[in-house]
Amino acid sequence: MDVNNQHVENPWEKLSELIQLNDAGQIIAFFESINPADTALAVSRLKAAEQTELMMLLQPQDAAEVLEDFSDTLAGDIIGELPPEQAASILEELDSDHVADLLGELDEDEVNSIIEEMAPEDAREARSLLQYAPDSAGGLMIYEYLDYRSEQTVQDVQDDLQNNREKYSDYDVQYLYVTDAEERLQGVLRMRDLLFPQRRTRLGEVMIRTPFHVHVDATVDQLHNFFEDHHLFGVPVVDDQMRLQGVVLPEAVEEAKRKRSVRQFLGFSGIVGGEEFRSMPLLVRSGRRLSWLSLNIVLNIIAASVIALYQDTLSAVIALAVFLPMVSDMSGCSGNQAVAVSMRELSLGLVRPAELLWVLSKEVGVGVLNGLALGVLLGGVAYLWKSNFFLGLVVGGAMALNTLVAVLLGGLIPLVLKRMKLDPALVSSPLLTTVTDMCGFFFVLSFASVVLEKL
Amino acid sequence: MDVNNQHVENPWEKLSELIQLNDAGQIIAFFESINPADTALAVSRLKAAEQTELMMLLQPQDAAEVLEDFSDTLAGDIIGELPPEQAASILEELDSDHVADLLGELDEDEVNSIIEEMAPEDAREARSLLQYAPDSAGGLMIYEYLDYRSEQTVQDVQDDLQNNREKYSDYDVQYLYVTDAEERLQGVLRMRDLLFPQRRTRLGEVMIRTPFHVHVDATVDQLHNFFEDHHLFGVPVVDDQMRLQGVVLPEAVEEAKRKRSVRQFLGFSGIVGGEEFRSMPLLVRSGRRLSWLSLNIVLNIIAASVIALYQDTLSAVIALAVFLPMVSDMSGCSGNQAVAVSMRELSLGLVRPAELLWVLSKEVGVGVLNGLALGVLLGGVAYLWKSNFFLGLVVGGAMALNTLVAVLLGGLIPLVLKRMKLDPALVSSPLLTTVTDMCGFFFVLSFASVVLEKL
Repeated sequence: MDVNNQHVENPWEKLSELIQLNDAGQIIAFFESINPADTALAVSRLKAAEQTELMMLLQPQDAAEVLEDFSDTLAGDIIGELPPEQAASILEELDSDHVADLLGELDEDEVNSIIEEMAPEDAREARSLLQYAPDSAGGLMIYEYLDYRSEQTVQDVQDDLQNNREKYSDYDVQYLYVTDAEERLQGVLRMRDLLFPQRRTRLGEVMIRTPFHVHVDATVDQLHNFFEDHHLFGVPVVDDQMRLQGVVLPEAVEEAKRKRSVRQFLGFSGIVGGEEFRSMPLLVRSGRRLSWLSLNIVLNIIAASVIALYQDTLSAVIALAVFLPMVSDMSGCSGNQAVAVSMRELSLGLVRPAELLWVLSKEVGVGVLNGLALGVLLGGVAYLWKSNFFLGLVVGGAMALNTLVAVLLGGLIPLVLKRMKLDPALVSSPLLTTVTDMCGFFFVLSFASVVLEKL
Repeated sequence: MDVNNQHVENPWEKLSELIQLNDAGQIIAFFESINPADTALAVSRLKAAEQTELMMLLQPQDAAEVLEDFSDTLAGDIIGELPPEQAASILEELDSDHVADLLGELDEDEVNSIIEEMAPEDAREARSLLQYAPDSAGGLMIYEYLDYRSEQTVQDVQDDLQNNREKYSDYDVQYLYVTDAEERLQGVLRMRDLLFPQRRTRLGEVMIRTPFHVHVDATVDQLHNFFEDHHLFGVPVVDDQMRLQGVVLPEAVEEAKRKRSVRQFLGFSGIVGGEEFRSMPLLVRSGRRLSWLSLNIVLNIIAASVIALYQDTLSAVIALAVFLPMVSDMSGCSGNQAVAVSMRELSLGLVRPAELLWVLSKEVGVGVLNGLALGVLLGGVAYLWKSNFFLGLVVGGAMALNTLVAVLLGGLIPLVLKRMKLDPALVSSPLLTTVTDMCGFFFVLSFASVVLEKL
């Protein structure tokens, strides 16, 4: 089988028809016939009622497979619309880390009513998953692992594997864990370690003792470093008493890191309060975007009030009005570059949040050089336009100085926000541009006031 | 062992001392004693000459382990400074997908001189890796896999596994592939499939025939979809003749997706021409940032020239100068939100690049609502400030209309750029803000010109 399937023009129309026909078999066949990416596209374009119908029509396992291809936000929206018992039976088909992600998208009442409908075992797992932070080992681990006692033999394991072939075939884990009567982690075996020993050998004799493990609270970055250092297919997760709680797979860690950088990108662009998709209701989309814009407009008003203070200077030299937005825009750009470098270095651990002086020492050179370059450029344009050397000096000087301010500030802001436990992706840019706007306006207009009679 | 190790104040100072002592053993012990993230920090802060010394001092395998924790850019810089024979022996210790990433950071001459120093087998592999795009199955695959012939028996495999235990212990792959004399993929076995059959069974009898596979040109997104649909530990990669070329692991796909969103975030923030780290030389950092800023300043000058056309209006009503930057800034924010949503939907396949009308239909509502809200807000501020209804109308109207323009344009730009094969992350924002600045200035000043005697 190849990953390339047929490309259908408007797959949601066909899907919508099939839902009307109430024919689950044809829907599955349709999904299998199209490009996997188009399944998500087709489902996302359905009306909410049709999405619900689709989920009710499919077997829980098939519905779960469809939802796995979705972003958590979209899948959560669909799950939230379903009757709790249907939602529960679909969630039971998903890996536990997926379950945690989806439940994280719902409000508490929805979560509780869904969990109540789950099989006792699954409900217990779901409840315990929700007690961990989504980006910790506890939130990323799966419960689908195999554990045995050290007294059991290779033969016992082989029998168990054979008897539960069906059930285990969905398990991603390639290790067998050995625990004691209190569920404390004692050892690990790789599947292939079962190939060599005699069948009556006890696991305790062949297992790797004191295996690698992580605590339930380990962060995504710690887990990432762990898997960079150790090429393993999974790591057991233990609690304070060394009791085995689950297994984290390296894909889950990479996925969590990827999701984090998506959130970062969206936050940086002013998409807040969760992901936005155009299939969401208009008022939700408009409202969320406005919530961020209204904060920004207040900041903008504060910044621009500097211009109001210098109306006399401005009406004396109206040409300055042309350069005000340029100086502030360009400084914002310079500052955002420094913000991005700091955020990247923070996320890689290449700078610590306390190293403000180190960042300053590294940014001051860039700020001076780029300030000079941009100042000469914009000052030159001003000089050439009005043939006034002092206008060039005012504009160029303000541009140069404000670039330096913006670069230094941009470099520092993410570190300071990180220390204050605020999200740099969300707060850096509005904070930076407010200050650089104010300073930019102030430099241009106050420099101009000084040499007003020469302009 | 736990993932939390000791936290050292300035790990690079200690590391620098140890390098002077020329004591590889102590360096290794030091790395093992500190937090894994701090290893990258410590090495990144060394002088370039010290980094080279460190790499020469360590055994290639240890050096490779250090470099694995680095971003490709940093690791590539370090590798590029080494004598080719040393670089080659370090690369030989890395997985083939890592090798491809690092070689991708070097220029052609460096790559060739390193490959010449590699063992013939590794050199052949490296050369063939470089012929594939880094984000294709060919660029992401590893060569570390096991393949056998269908005539071989389970016993043959067990013997081979036992005889090559050392070598295979580094292999990440959990499947055995079966190929014919022309290396064409015929089947696959999971390790655990070897547990059940008789030892004299031939692989051809127990293998899964016509297994899942992907073409060397499969994209990251296709691979991601593949692994979403099939929970496998790896997928064999074949060429046009179905010859087995390598194996792609799911972690490699997630990692490639994560790197892509990092590039996206950096591009969006004006960090172009590769990643920037503050350990890089000042002139490189300053120059790369300037290359993007100089384009932006030209665009800014073009946009602001609109203001110059309306100097008379502006000197008649100097209060307008306060609102010009606000209208253009806020529209830029609104537009960037729409850009981010389009980029995200494009990357998830939830919108196709040709669906301009669909995006318009979804953005027009948001644009009208948010335009009205922001227009009333900013218009209200203008009215209250100068107690002039017409000033409020001009500012509010311009704000509302420009928000609509920005939102529509922001939604469309990434789709259009994608169709033109340009990188939306890099080009969207400068393009958008230039147009929204121009339109914003134009709306404010031309509306004001119409009702000039009332202002």
